[in-house]
Amino acid sequence: MKLPKGFRYAGVSAGIKPHRKDVALVTSLVPAAGAGCFTVNKAKAAPCLDAEKRLPMADLRAVVVNSGNANALTGNAGLEAVQAVHAATAEALSILPANVVSASTGVIGVRLPHDKITAALPTLVASLREVPEDAADAIMTTDTRRKIAHRTVTLDGREVRLLAIAKGSGMIAPQLATMIVIVTTDCAIAPPLLQDALGSAMASTFNSLTVDDDMSTNDAVFALANGEAGNKRITTQNKDFVAFAATLKDLCAELTRAIAADGEGATKRLETEVTGAPSEVVAKDIALAISGSYLVKSALFGADPNWGRILATVGARAGSQGYAVNPYRARVIIHGVLVYDGGPVNHDKTVLRARMREPEVKVEVNLAEKGPGDWTAWGCDLSYDYVKINADYTSLVVETETGGVKKDDRLSNYCPAC
Amino acid sequence: MKLPKGFRYAGVSAGIKPHRKDVALVTSLVPAAGAGCFTVNKAKAAPCLDAEKRLPMADLRAVVVNSGNANALTGNAGLEAVQAVHAATAEALSILPANVVSASTGVIGVRLPHDKITAALPTLVASLREVPEDAADAIMTTDTRRKIAHRTVTLDGREVRLLAIAKGSGMIAPQLATMIVIVTTDCAIAPPLLQDALGSAMASTFNSLTVDDDMSTNDAVFALANGEAGNKRITTQNKDFVAFAATLKDLCAELTRAIAADGEGATKRLETEVTGAPSEVVAKDIALAISGSYLVKSALFGADPNWGRILATVGARAGSQGYAVNPYRARVIIHGVLVYDGGPVNHDKTVLRARMREPEVKVEVNLAEKGPGDWTAWGCDLSYDYVKINADYTSLVVETETGGVKKDDRLSNYCPAC
Repeated sequence: MKLPKGFRYAGVSAGIKPHRKDVALVTSLVPAAGAGCFTVNKAKAAPCLDAEKRLPMADLRAVVVNSGNANALTGNAGLEAVQAVHAATAEALSILPANVVSASTGVIGVRLPHDKITAALPTLVASLREVPEDAADAIMTTDTRRKIAHRTVTLDGREVRLLAIAKGSGMIAPQLATMIVIVTTDCAIAPPLLQDALGSAMASTFNSLTVDDDMSTNDAVFALANGEAGNKRITTQNKDFVAFAATLKDLCAELTRAIAADGEGATKRLETEVTGAPSEVVAKDIALAISGSYLVKSALFGADPNWGRILATVGARAGSQGYAVNPYRARVIIHGVLVYDGGPVNHDKTVLRARMREPEVKVEVNLAEKGPGDWTAWGCDLSYDYVKINADYTSLVVETETGGVKKDDRLSNYCPAC
Repeated sequence: MKLPKGFRYAGVSAGIKPHRKDVALVTSLVPAAGAGCFTVNKAKAAPCLDAEKRLPMADLRAVVVNSGNANALTGNAGLEAVQAVHAATAEALSILPANVVSASTGVIGVRLPHDKITAALPTLVASLREVPEDAADAIMTTDTRRKIAHRTVTLDGREVRLLAIAKGSGMIAPQLATMIVIVTTDCAIAPPLLQDALGSAMASTFNSLTVDDDMSTNDAVFALANGEAGNKRITTQNKDFVAFAATLKDLCAELTRAIAADGEGATKRLETEVTGAPSEVVAKDIALAISGSYLVKSALFGADPNWGRILATVGARAGSQGYAVNPYRARVIIHGVLVYDGGPVNHDKTVLRARMREPEVKVEVNLAEKGPGDWTAWGCDLSYDYVKINADYTSLVVETETGGVKKDDRLSNYCPAC
């Protein structure tokens, strides 16, 4: 893993969640271009409301993230908590509050215990390292796996490095389908161009991902570019910009797949490719509808080759949205097995069932409309564990707060409420 | 139960499903006005494609319904099977094929074994009775309870009776959110007026219901009105029409609630009332989004008072659809307990949790927009059993066909695949 120059990362326990890292800090040693993309949810969390107004910016130095509490639907108290966290972070790093943005993830509607975060800041700053693992761990909620991705790209003869940490497991739907991602890069690029590159990476990555069709109040993707690679600063959409943007998108695509595979309760990942639609918009809508269908997801969990549900979903979107799509004419391939081609196709159900037990299942739907609309969406299956995790969520907090019972590993991962 | 005059009902086993009634017949002794509403799914099943073209009509005599096979995505063979069933039904009843419509429900994409139905028709006709229970049983799929509702209304001094049988449990979403409903009434009413009354009953009933947001290929609601009550025939939208239409809507509302309570895997019913929205369209969209949310439904299953998910869903729709709605200003009441009113409200979580364990939970969301938009939607919780039922669906067919293992009652209810 080649680390972008000039960044430090830390993650510690501030006591928002018991016995787990719950506050992360990512900082650039020099002022960095800062960009961000945020959920379009109108019940947007306080830190998102704050950061959205202030990005892009030229002098971002720090992103501080807590898990265990979303600071969403918390009103003015929530916005004041954000200011308090920024002030304390600035003081601990000897920078200005204007150089700091933040994010939160966890239970909605509970006041952020910001005093715990401010109290932990000296420790957090003292823990800053060149490696991102602790920070990646501290932003996890129901994630079962740490998510880090990295890339390099040569621009202007210089090696430019990109690294991202991510969390995301449930309440995942466009837009923005992630929970929190922080991209650090030593690329030299003007803030508006960084924002462009980040924004254009979203459509085919985090906005083509659904775990449960539930849009978060806290989705946020940040990018910090500090110029330490020494490449010629990107200020227009030149070929360096194109190369950088493509690398950034590729990085986001890897994290999209990682989040899909680690969706709450997921036992397998679903890739849905729709081709031959009248437009990309239609292809994307249908691909996401298939990925989000309760019935498709349940069938995937049970490796049940119930392909009728896939075409029923195509027909449902076509009918309700008025798309010029005829599901009867489609071709459907489930993980390499042709099951429908303008009519049911005889296939070996034992083979198909076995293929559907693989950890990644690809569904291909060609709509045979000879249109230019192709799109790929990402998702996962719907298992008992998804229900378990989300049926017990708040209850678990209360039980944990009062010294409650031991839960299985998956459940213990999100105490209390993140 | 006051039965509409001049109708007969039957339900027998034709061998599409082993050991269960799987073909139902509803017939009027005299030609009846016939009306129908159908799914907008473009992967519409063959019997729906046929009936939709032919209704409303003045001389409907029989509706024949099979469970165990949806006859959807079956191409020309599917349409030919419909004709064969209609011809055999007409012959057995000494009427014309033009007097018959049909419906199917069950697994998608498998050829309808129409010879089993035609072979069973003599027995089916011989079984016709004045009572609807056998017919109601024969259309069930994953339903755990028979669904029959009835009403009377006095029109022009005559008692007019309405009765409906319904099935519906999974793959339930607008529009049309039911599976199959047959309304019989002895009202004298012109076919276009019957169609109007039926169509206008849909919006607040079957189109305000979701179990899993998955739109069926086979949703169909039929109405037969044979005039045997002797009321003055309704030919305009007069006060008799208004009274009849209101009674019909009330009947459909009862079945809507019955289907919601018996949703696949449901342990409780959810009623979501949205008020104060800018318009009815917005209120309905938000009410259905809350009812269909994986996270809200999971929390309901676990009696987890996670009200943040309700407002997150409001914000998600407002943000993605551009509604003039501010979730921060809303008021949320969960089964009588105020949890949010422009900000979190302290409440007794033990009380709320206990209330959420009741078999019916009502969520009220006032959007405080002073708008005229009010709407109520119906749904249910998301349980392990929903996943189990839908993960095993096709597999179960195969196992049953090969003499497979004993399943629990819920699962045995849908062998093979209905």
